[in-house]
Amino acid sequence: MRELSPLHKERLGYKPKLAGALKSGIKSIKISKGHATSAVKDASDIQNLFSHVYGEPIVTFDESGSPLNLSTRNVGVILSGGQAPGGHNVIAGLYDALKAADSNNELYGFLGGPSGIVDSQYVKFDDEFINKYRNTGGFDIIGSGRTKLETEEQFEKTLATCKALNISAIVIIGGDDSNTNACMLAEWLKAKNTGIQVIGCPKTIDGDLKNDQIEISFGFDTATKTYAELIGNIQRDANSAKKYWHFVKLMGRSATHVGLEVALQTQPNICLISEEVEAKKQSLESIVDYVANVVAERGNAGKNFGVALIPEGLIEFIPEMKTMIQNLNDLLAVLEKDSSFANAQNVDKYQIIASKLASENAKVFSSLPGMIKAQLLMDRDPHGNVQVSKIETEKLLIEMVRVKLAQMKSEGKYTGKFSDQAHFFGYEGRCAMPSNFDADYCYSLGYNAFALISAGLTGYLSSVKNLTKPAAEWVAGGVPLTMMMNMEKRHGKMKPVIQKALVELDGPVFKEFEANREKWAKTDCYVFPGAIQYFGPSDVCDITTITLQLESKKPARV
Amino acid sequence: MRELSPLHKERLGYKPKLAGALKSGIKSIKISKGHATSAVKDASDIQNLFSHVYGEPIVTFDESGSPLNLSTRNVGVILSGGQAPGGHNVIAGLYDALKAADSNNELYGFLGGPSGIVDSQYVKFDDEFINKYRNTGGFDIIGSGRTKLETEEQFEKTLATCKALNISAIVIIGGDDSNTNACMLAEWLKAKNTGIQVIGCPKTIDGDLKNDQIEISFGFDTATKTYAELIGNIQRDANSAKKYWHFVKLMGRSATHVGLEVALQTQPNICLISEEVEAKKQSLESIVDYVANVVAERGNAGKNFGVALIPEGLIEFIPEMKTMIQNLNDLLAVLEKDSSFANAQNVDKYQIIASKLASENAKVFSSLPGMIKAQLLMDRDPHGNVQVSKIETEKLLIEMVRVKLAQMKSEGKYTGKFSDQAHFFGYEGRCAMPSNFDADYCYSLGYNAFALISAGLTGYLSSVKNLTKPAAEWVAGGVPLTMMMNMEKRHGKMKPVIQKALVELDGPVFKEFEANREKWAKTDCYVFPGAIQYFGPSDVCDITTITLQLESKKPARV
Repeated sequence: MRELSPLHKERLGYKPKLAGALKSGIKSIKISKGHATSAVKDASDIQNLFSHVYGEPIVTFDESGSPLNLSTRNVGVILSGGQAPGGHNVIAGLYDALKAADSNNELYGFLGGPSGIVDSQYVKFDDEFINKYRNTGGFDIIGSGRTKLETEEQFEKTLATCKALNISAIVIIGGDDSNTNACMLAEWLKAKNTGIQVIGCPKTIDGDLKNDQIEISFGFDTATKTYAELIGNIQRDANSAKKYWHFVKLMGRSATHVGLEVALQTQPNICLISEEVEAKKQSLESIVDYVANVVAERGNAGKNFGVALIPEGLIEFIPEMKTMIQNLNDLLAVLEKDSSFANAQNVDKYQIIASKLASENAKVFSSLPGMIKAQLLMDRDPHGNVQVSKIETEKLLIEMVRVKLAQMKSEGKYTGKFSDQAHFFGYEGRCAMPSNFDADYCYSLGYNAFALISAGLTGYLSSVKNLTKPAAEWVAGGVPLTMMMNMEKRHGKMKPVIQKALVELDGPVFKEFEANREKWAKTDCYVFPGAIQYFGPSDVCDITTITLQLESKKPARV
Repeated sequence: MRELSPLHKERLGYKPKLAGALKSGIKSIKISKGHATSAVKDASDIQNLFSHVYGEPIVTFDESGSPLNLSTRNVGVILSGGQAPGGHNVIAGLYDALKAADSNNELYGFLGGPSGIVDSQYVKFDDEFINKYRNTGGFDIIGSGRTKLETEEQFEKTLATCKALNISAIVIIGGDDSNTNACMLAEWLKAKNTGIQVIGCPKTIDGDLKNDQIEISFGFDTATKTYAELIGNIQRDANSAKKYWHFVKLMGRSATHVGLEVALQTQPNICLISEEVEAKKQSLESIVDYVANVVAERGNAGKNFGVALIPEGLIEFIPEMKTMIQNLNDLLAVLEKDSSFANAQNVDKYQIIASKLASENAKVFSSLPGMIKAQLLMDRDPHGNVQVSKIETEKLLIEMVRVKLAQMKSEGKYTGKFSDQAHFFGYEGRCAMPSNFDADYCYSLGYNAFALISAGLTGYLSSVKNLTKPAAEWVAGGVPLTMMMNMEKRHGKMKPVIQKALVELDGPVFKEFEANREKWAKTDCYVFPGAIQYFGPSDVCDITTITLQLESKKPARV
């Protein structure tokens, strides 16, 4: 029976590299403020909604600005939403800065996500506790949760918790939604003159929380490297056994940054990009045709193997699927009340549904394999809606490609064999031990969050930039959350939200992929990244993603 | 577009550590021979079948024996069966020894497995070629295949290929079956006085090719570490999100060494061991009960999460499933000729089948979830038999546990929630970049194979022992393949085979697991191994499996 693995033990002692301006320690940090900011869009709406925190300047920590206010204070920290590698290091960095500023400062961790602060469930950190979690993966230090902080009642309870613990600042580690809510909380607390500040930290393996100010959210680096390790291993297996096509679904519903980065790291034969599917209004049939043609072309050349990457959210980006599913949701709500439908066998249900859907939708529905039809009927959410995330898109494509290939074979267009393996990678990467990059970046984000608190700021996102350079050259500072916001429709209502970064089809990352994919489809250009390394040469251990490297070279988007 | 990943580039330059006696180079190696050997069982049958290669002594390389014969020679090498990390290093070690002995020696690699030597498909290795594959995963250097070398015609063609290329020795890198066939080929070539030697190398990630002479087959170390990385990450995710039970099927059909090693590395809540299921004649129901009880006990304590490891071959070890499937195979052979059955819907087919199976088998069949019944009917091999390997055992258990938990809930015995995630890991580990251990071990096995050839031996397995010690203390030598053989029934006939090593329920590895599993079920004792490391402290990078460490402490089995 073991307590810790050898690597775990070793990593506890790793000293993360701090961003340049933070390196000399919290007591030496000085702050410089830029000009007033606006919102990325819908500025007047955002200003109205966030009148107390709107328009603040971007701030940078450097050697020439004003000193921080290091008076004694207590801080609370919350992990919000899905796990991402490095969350523990954000907390460690925050803790170290806080204790370095004043050993009487206390850091409280709220348990199980945002509900922890509402319900006053917490732990108080000390060295012994923190030291057990340094440079480790997961969010198990205090747990995470998906409760959204947005109601007046939640805010009141949050305030009560802060007062009881004498907390004057809250750090919320989360994705775009959690940081939107962090900003709402900051606004509310400031409007009430509570003196309680709120600082966000950009987390998500999906990589869709980024903009001119935030180069990347933490966790993306480690998660994509972990998936790339697995894809590379599978490619090597495919290329050795030469008998399987591996269809790999990758986590990430709303953007395909993960798929794109993993594709650039591994150079698979096929990688579908949801944003491209949507932009080109591709039909399911045309996607199946594309995949089947690559399989056929390789098969006809004697290569009955390959690897295809599929983004988890693909189906929601196919316009006709989206429309069909909406129609299906409405239809099922009616049909379910009909006991003869409810008791019918699946094959009969499919016929009834096809006869009642709008004809275009019926065509799409009927084209789906039985297994997927069954999933559409079975896995429904509490509101009765089809749960698109539960659809096994990788198997859907395999089945449809198989049918297409059989047709091509009968037409003499395909002479190969098609044997498949389906995979889904997501949970394997969300809690991996953070890479050196994520360990350093997160520690800096946390340390920096305390600097922002000490500068008296609220409604800011902790920001560390220039990330493709060595840590000593990283630029630390803060960005007003309102600056990244615009208004979007959610559940029928206009809401302020942090703009999600989708893959830009005219950006350098997609362009790099686009320029190569045809070659990767035909030729075996597989790259094998191998496991994340922590101790070796800097080239192997400290370099961040290809996405960041390509984006760092493009001119700023204004 | 990239050629090689940073880690790949770096690993090409790694210099594998050679086993002690090999370290001073092929020209300094000396050989000592032990006593004549027998077979592990059925000695007279084995002796009759292998009269020319039977009974040879175990040999050891050391400093005091006789010198080798390093006259010029050509050698051929074959990769046989499923991929295992380190195969390329066996070839690199063989090549380096061969060229160090005499630069006029040539090494030929046969393409696509054993069929390559039969059909004379080959490459000739040179430095530039070999150097591209050093310390890399996969078998793509020459490809692998599953053709069995066993017929007279194949042997004749093999001989013709060897004559044409002036090859006087063949190295076959494979598992138990491939090495059995290697021995048959050695016997045939010796009986014909061809002067062509055959040497085997012990390969398989399954870890079931081991005995008193062979401590472990290569690839087991890297593959189990790769799976353990993933399981550890998933455990950390489960323990952070606290809402999913992850059921993970692990590759390995005939033995559960992989599952057991991964369990010892990660300490999951549940790990099923096929050999125990068989020994205790457990029913599917009793296995489901065991799993459901662990889930319920944790759920009742507020822990609605966990990780369960399931060996790929489980179903074949459940006596009642085995019996039912045999009955089903016979039944389906008859039913399929009946067009009314063939055209019936699945639910009706299930009823017909249940009515025609023997009553005990019908009970087992009827207890299975619809999805699994469908798999039993759909995925049949060319002989019409159910393909047990295609059954999604992890989903079978999930569905049955779900039903059991619902029943327990209705009885007031279970108050938790059960949300599941299913995984299957296999292809992710078979072609991983070899760990330092596998890189060193394989390189030594290959180097050693050439030493055995130079000692004039045939029908031997390359052997490197004392593997839990630093490489300088490893003991290199060779073991007659016949020594590991006995007679077993295969397809109704008695055949000579290398005895497969199953998990020993009275051995130290299972005992260690057994002593802890109850605690692991209840308490969260998760260990997080993290990614394989190549450059760090020796404790992190060079230590082999827990299985080997535990087995090295037990007295020899003799």
